[in-house]
Amino acid sequence: MEPTPDRTPVSELTDDEAWELLASQRVGRLATAAAGMADIFPVSFAVDDRSILFRTTPGSKLVELTVNSEVAFEADEIDESTARSVVLRGLAQVVEEDEAVLRAEQLLPRTFSGEDDKDTWVRITPMAIRGRRLTRG
Amino acid sequence: MEPTPDRTPVSELTDDEAWELLASQRVGRLATAAAGMADIFPVSFAVDDRSILFRTTPGSKLVELTVNSEVAFEADEIDESTARSVVLRGLAQVVEEDEAVLRAEQLLPRTFSGEDDKDTWVRITPMAIRGRRLTRG
Repeated sequence: MEPTPDRTPVSELTDDEAWELLASQRVGRLATAAAGMADIFPVSFAVDDRSILFRTTPGSKLVELTVNSEVAFEADEIDESTARSVVLRGLAQVVEEDEAVLRAEQLLPRTFSGEDDKDTWVRITPMAIRGRRLTRG
Repeated sequence: MEPTPDRTPVSELTDDEAWELLASQRVGRLATAAAGMADIFPVSFAVDDRSILFRTTPGSKLVELTVNSEVAFEADEIDESTARSVVLRGLAQVVEEDEAVLRAEQLLPRTFSGEDDKDTWVRITPMAIRGRRLTRG
């Protein structure tokens, strides 16, 4: 599922299709590059007005790593016949406004144990988004 | 699914469980930090003797980004009741030995269209691995 524009039949998703796929998923993966070190974290997330909101623990490593930083985020849907994946790059910032936090909590009702405690929300404002579809041969 | 050791009932996977989970998956996500910029790529992969092998296109951006670099890699299995995720950090290097390439091709038979053309294999030799299990509340 990696870029091979000259050889493979990978098709690009439109922006609308890419956001639709993101909105249909609950768990994505966040990539950080603090101090030049790549790291990756699965996160529960929601889509809010063409941005990504994810919740985390106040003061956590993930907050430190991401806040005011450029990050990359990926979510996908893979089944036997098709793989669709969306990658976006953007700026992560803590959500401060109560209204947005409330909305975020409504947007992300599905939760695993313990996640209820996580009450810092981070928003990724995208600078670029790219979605791809691969059909199984 | 983010680290919250002091508050959440997240449990750690043993190394054996983590490798078992990796071996059961076909698609993972690779995070890179070239020039301090986070990026993330879904990749088809296989486990070979406690390393990760993924295929990509010769000369591709992904080869450039990863070779001889520290990368992070994640794969997970998420269902309605449980989320298990494994993250490893390691060094990526092109696989040069024919024998290893042959083994890699046997290990990764499932393919999406176009992937057959991808004949550069990259190995991630892990420096650290961590697996976690979250049970739905």
